[in-house]
Amino acid sequence: MSSAPPAPDDRRFVLTLGCPDRPGIIARITSFIAEFGGSIVEAGYHSVPGASGQEVAARVGQGAPQSGTAADTGWFFTRQAIKASTVPFGIAELRDRFAGVAADFGPETEWQLLDSGERRRAVLLVSKDGHCLHDLLGRATSGELPATIEAVIGNHPDLAGMTEAHGVKFHHVPFPKDPAERGPAFDEVRALVDAHDPHAVVLARFMQVLPAELCEHWAGKAINIHHSFLPSFVGARPYHQAFARGVKLIGATCHYVTAELDAGPIIEQDVIRIDHADEVRDMVRLGRDIERVVLARGLRWHLEGRVLVHGRRTVVFS
Amino acid sequence: MSSAPPAPDDRRFVLTLGCPDRPGIIARITSFIAEFGGSIVEAGYHSVPGASGQEVAARVGQGAPQSGTAADTGWFFTRQAIKASTVPFGIAELRDRFAGVAADFGPETEWQLLDSGERRRAVLLVSKDGHCLHDLLGRATSGELPATIEAVIGNHPDLAGMTEAHGVKFHHVPFPKDPAERGPAFDEVRALVDAHDPHAVVLARFMQVLPAELCEHWAGKAINIHHSFLPSFVGARPYHQAFARGVKLIGATCHYVTAELDAGPIIEQDVIRIDHADEVRDMVRLGRDIERVVLARGLRWHLEGRVLVHGRRTVVFS
Amino acid sequence: MSSAPPAPDDRRFVLTLGCPDRPGIIARITSFIAEFGGSIVEAGYHSVPGASGQEVAARVGQGAPQSGTAADTGWFFTRQAIKASTVPFGIAELRDRFAGVAADFGPETEWQLLDSGERRRAVLLVSKDGHCLHDLLGRATSGELPATIEAVIGNHPDLAGMTEAHGVKFHHVPFPKDPAERGPAFDEVRALVDAHDPHAVVLARFMQVLPAELCEHWAGKAINIHHSFLPSFVGARPYHQAFARGVKLIGATCHYVTAELDAGPIIEQDVIRIDHADEVRDMVRLGRDIERVVLARGLRWHLEGRVLVHGRRTVVFS
Amino acid sequence: MSSAPPAPDDRRFVLTLGCPDRPGIIARITSFIAEFGGSIVEAGYHSVPGASGQEVAARVGQGAPQSGTAADTGWFFTRQAIKASTVPFGIAELRDRFAGVAADFGPETEWQLLDSGERRRAVLLVSKDGHCLHDLLGRATSGELPATIEAVIGNHPDLAGMTEAHGVKFHHVPFPKDPAERGPAFDEVRALVDAHDPHAVVLARFMQVLPAELCEHWAGKAINIHHSFLPSFVGARPYHQAFARGVKLIGATCHYVTAELDAGPIIEQDVIRIDHADEVRDMVRLGRDIERVVLARGLRWHLEGRVLVHGRRTVVFS
Repeated sequence: MSSAPPAPDDRRFVLTLGCPDRPGIIARITSFIAEFGGSIVEAGYHSVPGASGQEVAARVGQGAPQSGTAADTGWFFTRQAIKASTVPFGIAELRDRFAGVAADFGPETEWQLLDSGERRRAVLLVSKDGHCLHDLLGRATSGELPATIEAVIGNHPDLAGMTEAHGVKFHHVPFPKDPAERGPAFDEVRALVDAHDPHAVVLARFMQVLPAELCEHWAGKAINIHHSFLPSFVGARPYHQAFARGVKLIGATCHYVTAELDAGPIIEQDVIRIDHADEVRDMVRLGRDIERVVLARGLRWHLEGRVLVHGRRTVVFS
Repeated sequence: MSSAPPAPDDRRFVLTLGCPDRPGIIARITSFIAEFGGSIVEAGYHSVPGASGQEVAARVGQGAPQSGTAADTGWFFTRQAIKASTVPFGIAELRDRFAGVAADFGPETEWQLLDSGERRRAVLLVSKDGHCLHDLLGRATSGELPATIEAVIGNHPDLAGMTEAHGVKFHHVPFPKDPAERGPAFDEVRALVDAHDPHAVVLARFMQVLPAELCEHWAGKAINIHHSFLPSFVGARPYHQAFARGVKLIGATCHYVTAELDAGPIIEQDVIRIDHADEVRDMVRLGRDIERVVLARGLRWHLEGRVLVHGRRTVVFS
Repeated sequence: MSSAPPAPDDRRFVLTLGCPDRPGIIARITSFIAEFGGSIVEAGYHSVPGASGQEVAARVGQGAPQSGTAADTGWFFTRQAIKASTVPFGIAELRDRFAGVAADFGPETEWQLLDSGERRRAVLLVSKDGHCLHDLLGRATSGELPATIEAVIGNHPDLAGMTEAHGVKFHHVPFPKDPAERGPAFDEVRALVDAHDPHAVVLARFMQVLPAELCEHWAGKAINIHHSFLPSFVGARPYHQAFARGVKLIGATCHYVTAELDAGPIIEQDVIRIDHADEVRDMVRLGRDIERVVLARGLRWHLEGRVLVHGRRTVVFS
Repeated sequence: MSSAPPAPDDRRFVLTLGCPDRPGIIARITSFIAEFGGSIVEAGYHSVPGASGQEVAARVGQGAPQSGTAADTGWFFTRQAIKASTVPFGIAELRDRFAGVAADFGPETEWQLLDSGERRRAVLLVSKDGHCLHDLLGRATSGELPATIEAVIGNHPDLAGMTEAHGVKFHHVPFPKDPAERGPAFDEVRALVDAHDPHAVVLARFMQVLPAELCEHWAGKAINIHHSFLPSFVGARPYHQAFARGVKLIGATCHYVTAELDAGPIIEQDVIRIDHADEVRDMVRLGRDIERVVLARGLRWHLEGRVLVHGRRTVVFS
């Protein structure tokens, strides 16, 4: 299934970059763009202070950052969307030229340059619950999702019909009951996914916990929707937990998948109000609306290069 | 300080009742009211199913209810607001007459009859942080809070001026550094509070953990505002925890105080959106807006007899 | 396409009633139910004060109510959901018996008794924009919508494929360009709709204004989703209007269709935040999420008999 | 009354600028800052496309922009917060130096450079309704508002006590009943306000319509809170209008004051949910919570130089 490519004047070259903070980075990048007459149509900046202040010291005590450096010195993040029609050469040459600029920001610098005119690819993993799949298929069909859905893989066959009605290939990979025997099934899922070299691997209510090596292999592109407002009710049956605790709002969390279950960097969250009369099945129904929207929003931001990861946190230039 | 009494035609006799469920309770109560020509201007009902269904069985496994009975049989809750001008006798006689009706619903029945024309009394406990106190004093002054604030008690003297500017008595009760030596201070607070026989004891950002016997003594009338969306970040420094986890929404929870810290029945919750650029101090500032509103809303519902407790949960007829 | 019928114990007989207010109505109804041992599992009440007070007098000046009586005397509304398994006879006999009760409340009384076990039927009218249709088809397929979608009628053929993929019949009724010549097309739509005797006629982004006689014919069951927060931007191109005005939130409104365009009684509304960087096309995309949810919520409440109309306003027992 | 000045390392020099768009502006500004080693800690950009595209043409038809130029060519807006401790000279020299840069962007360029270490001044206009005044006084006292409240002026004396309890001077300026005779009163208000040379003139539920010449005189610094979600219910008694129309959400709008009543550029809006049971007086009470928050948020953004006006719209770098 294909989504319409952007109209020529909507095409953007999108730079995202994270590096140790120091004065002059913005000037260096924007001067580089100005030199060839590039027009910046959208820009986001964020700098995280270093560990000198008391605030940060307190923060460090709460959760160990993944990178010691980011806590010691400050860190700088930016996203720059350049109108492609104002760039006098192609994305490949732009990448070559910018590599020289990025080198000046130090070896820890991470950056990428996306071409919004290039088709982005997503693969979806599902189980039996179809509301997120149905929503994403509809968005892709209407050109609302900035990606094509290359394939859907289910550990149950239930959603094959819905998928194929949208002209998307469905693969059924049965999973054995015994978790210890699921290795070959995960290997098959991995091969099916990787065949598409996707920009996003979406766990759209996929009820299996990915093994650590798969989390590592798809780091930064495997996205999960958790049907709870994390970290409130981690793990299984969050609505039952929410009912028992008598909370007045339930929510959903879209996050990157990491080996630590339900603890990956959060991309987006939202909530919906409930009251005492709502039973677990009402929460399930109400929760679906918020899950759909939160997953679609988070996935869109990921695909558009709006999400940068910083330790356990994300910077989202929405 | 006094708030204006309701205009005569706004006066209500408000019945709240909880009892084991069985058919005919509503008919019995409303017939009783109809017999003397009472006009019901607002009514709420809620019944909690008994333990026969699968849903409830699942639920029970998540959190032990405080009352075994409530899990075995269903439970029924109602709130009925009767226009006082349509009742041909006073609240005392109404209570006497209704006692006979309530007796039919069994010995576990709990009920009360409030007169909205009777002045309700609140006492506030505070520390140094004045935003909730300031908000409640303003609401009381403008007649927006259905209670008078009888006194404010602080473990620091900082908020004496603000309190007295509204004509409310402030008591400073210093608390020793050593938690083990705080018993006498709590005794003094207890005596100062109980002197007013209040309908609500509001912990308006009071930074002391009440001893278990005080929780028990003020059960069902001590109300706390926790500056987090419980159960996400229990305990101290929730905004630091929220920052470290990178959540996209922060919230506040108004709940009854119980001996189990931050686990009392939740009356109201709400959230506010944050993003990566918000540091802990921004969360503190943004959180104040949501804390104020959530506390004021929860307190209002409590004072108007809209909140009934059922195990760890509340029924709120808002 | 069929949605799963409710499990036996979930079956409800749902009474909705509106009549001139006077003491004793609730007692009369609930005693009637108690006499045969009926168990009320959900109940809502609302009474609108009569025109004696100043408040109402002011209100009347703002918009003429459709019923002079409702402004003169008070009006009473209720919804009672009775567990069907506790009623010792069928819905037909329940209707017969209740007719005697309702007669006592005066000739202006309006009431109905729904059986949640009876299949409810909806017909959808669409144009080219498929996001609301896609959402409703998905909800119906997953059993989330309390109705079957009997047919979809479009004035363009674009959405035939999506509809038929869900096993629902699609009818294409072309509309002439000249509004003056659309009479026969509307006649055909009317016949196609009425063949299903539907409980709801949903204008799911149907871009044609219904003629007055069709509004009248489908009064109380034709439901529209307006892609604006009414009454902010009535009429066409609301997002262009919203952009020009620079509002910070956009919304959607689900309302009953009346001859006065975009002025029918509002069932549900919600909003989504935008900012200066959002152009009209962003609003269109963001607006779709809120339109879908508002329409689905409003339609569900309508189908469950939760919405009662009172002049230009609705009472929603949600 | 004074609010605490920011800690030395929090001091910022804040540049805001709007000018005709062309490539290279960002590079020019950020290079200027990098040359003296300035550290940019927060930056926002926005460019409005010119009138070449269809979208804009459509937009122009909806509401005449105040500046013909802005519709013809694109427009560029930025806000740059520079850490003051990284600037090797004072704000005056920074302004002098930047003037040379700004000159290159053309004669239509508008810019300012604020020093967050300089005390900002606000004057409040009020009538009888004190909830917004009370909220702002509380925020100022707790150091939460980035300004001092220099004076409060009321056309009624009711709020003198509340104001003076916070140590702020209150001026009572009586207004004649006849609107035609209010000129001298407005002259007195103008003189009292201008004596403080304020950065913000806040109409905190001031129930008088400012004459056109005063709107012009305070253009860009007179801020109003309208107790409605504009443009839904302009003018007086919006809650009565909202009740009559049966809307499901009410809101508040913070906007700049212009000669066209309730049509000035919108700074911030928010809403709160209501239902059929809420009467006008409930809306008044509920609306107060949302008015307070929306006014405080909009005023804060204005004082921090986050709001730039573009025709009838605002760009808010929040």
